[in-house]
Amino acid sequence: MMPEFRKDPIVNRWVIIAPERARRPQQTRRDRATATLEPCAFCAGNEAMTPPEVLVCPATPTQADAPRWAVRVVPNKYPALTKSGACTIDSSGLYQRQSGLGVHEVIIEAPEHVTHTATLSEQQLATVISAYRERISALRLDKRWRYILVYKNQGREAGATFEHVHSQLIALPMVPREAAEEMSGAEVYYDSTGNCIYCDMLRDEINDSSRIVTANDRFVVLSPFASRFPYETWIMPKQHSSSFEQGSTHETFDLARCLRDMLNRLDRALNDPPFNYYIHSNPLADNKSRLYHWHIEILPKLVQVAGFEWGSGSYINPVTPEDAARLLREALR
Amino acid sequence: MMPEFRKDPIVNRWVIIAPERARRPQQTRRDRATATLEPCAFCAGNEAMTPPEVLVCPATPTQADAPRWAVRVVPNKYPALTKSGACTIDSSGLYQRQSGLGVHEVIIEAPEHVTHTATLSEQQLATVISAYRERISALRLDKRWRYILVYKNQGREAGATFEHVHSQLIALPMVPREAAEEMSGAEVYYDSTGNCIYCDMLRDEINDSSRIVTANDRFVVLSPFASRFPYETWIMPKQHSSSFEQGSTHETFDLARCLRDMLNRLDRALNDPPFNYYIHSNPLADNKSRLYHWHIEILPKLVQVAGFEWGSGSYINPVTPEDAARLLREALR
Repeated sequence: MMPEFRKDPIVNRWVIIAPERARRPQQTRRDRATATLEPCAFCAGNEAMTPPEVLVCPATPTQADAPRWAVRVVPNKYPALTKSGACTIDSSGLYQRQSGLGVHEVIIEAPEHVTHTATLSEQQLATVISAYRERISALRLDKRWRYILVYKNQGREAGATFEHVHSQLIALPMVPREAAEEMSGAEVYYDSTGNCIYCDMLRDEINDSSRIVTANDRFVVLSPFASRFPYETWIMPKQHSSSFEQGSTHETFDLARCLRDMLNRLDRALNDPPFNYYIHSNPLADNKSRLYHWHIEILPKLVQVAGFEWGSGSYINPVTPEDAARLLREALR
Repeated sequence: MMPEFRKDPIVNRWVIIAPERARRPQQTRRDRATATLEPCAFCAGNEAMTPPEVLVCPATPTQADAPRWAVRVVPNKYPALTKSGACTIDSSGLYQRQSGLGVHEVIIEAPEHVTHTATLSEQQLATVISAYRERISALRLDKRWRYILVYKNQGREAGATFEHVHSQLIALPMVPREAAEEMSGAEVYYDSTGNCIYCDMLRDEINDSSRIVTANDRFVVLSPFASRFPYETWIMPKQHSSSFEQGSTHETFDLARCLRDMLNRLDRALNDPPFNYYIHSNPLADNKSRLYHWHIEILPKLVQVAGFEWGSGSYINPVTPEDAARLLREALR
């Protein structure tokens, strides 16, 4: 069966039904210890194990036998969505379904078998961020896509099936719920104040300082006031900017430095926690660049989401954002 | 620090910041194997280890030395919310916080150290359901509470910290997001059709039958059309009914039979998966009984929620609801 989008008729939530995903192999450490040790498809030398690449960032030449690439982007072998085919929409009675059109790619972040993003060099992370930007810029030319989400799962408990450092990108034919809610909140605020809510929030946070973890010339990392999870942090550009992919080379380096610093703090303070991050950016072709402010949200996976959270849509967070920020501030001292 | 509600200024999502929860002991099997084996606070004989009970359902007398209770309800020793104190609301700048007022109780579902709800008898489960109903009916007299959520976490991966069978109840001074979204979806539908959307959906599902798992005189179990998770199922009363707590004794027994049957199917088909369930019912004091239809949502915990889900608010489900329903239908054959 091809993947499809289905919409819940009560809360209008889209889900992706993707039976092909059930065929994914598991390649995290625990599985590898028990299962037959397959070679890692993401390591240099095993390029034939992945679908042909859509982007290669060449390595700076060092030795003759060094890998020739620094970062590779390949289509996901077990994609949640499919790139080609007609878009059919089928409404019958209360229910609506739509072809599962979209793009699902994997960003392989290093040619060596590294398992922690925090151990990559600044230069390497800057190449990863450039690869994100390059793929978004290429994919946004296809007018079928309305939103591109870049995300990372590190560690089995955070949903990773491969341990080799990688992130993923999904292009969607619709603006997903979380992005739409942020846009709509930002729009309400903009309409009543003429300001970007993220800019105003950043100004207040910098003045108050109790939830600031770290900062450099262009970026601030903070524990959000209403954090859902212990040690949740957001990386935000200081200057208003709605679209992640439009950053300069200098900005890319500052972001790489900031992200690396932050992931090192998490590893140091919380003993290499599994985590997710994702980049929230302006929807494609939605000209509201004055009110939205791109950012990265990092969610360490330390507690289980349970019945209360699923049933209420609210969260119980046992660590105050102020305590979280303090611990993370002190982590690299 | 007392617990408090905090509201995210962008998406208006309330979270509970509850530092006391960090003090909870872990009592699931994996922890118990490594940690000192404490006696179980939920077992008969250890009643002094919990706060004094707020409800006791007496056992049917059998032998002289049998436990004298079948179900006990006690305040949660590490509550996410606090029952007493003034309700203060503090708005400063963009941020809003409010005292963490609410009720957090534990329903101990058996006096013996049983770890799987599916192994309880129908009679015992009926007593558990009656206890839910009795507590909701008692708590709704306190006009501070606007919503009561009953939920269960079974298994460490589903967020349980005690393995002894139990469920929980939280009374909130606000209608939480998930319930509010269902109410609002049901209202839009009611305004345009004059019907309950759940009733119409049930009628269509029964006609179609491909997503029906099982049914009895009063209840239907189905895999929802836009299931977020593999083997997600909903238990729904056939007759329109907005408030869970208003069921008759006959209905309680039919529900107990249905829930037990369903949990046994999950255990059989999926090898005792960790799971959550929660009851969605009409908000207290919200007189919209014509449009809402209470139900139980059961979510087995088989996959990790990861970066895509957090970043998008959408879900990738690798099992079609039709396949899930088929497997669960055949599980008890």
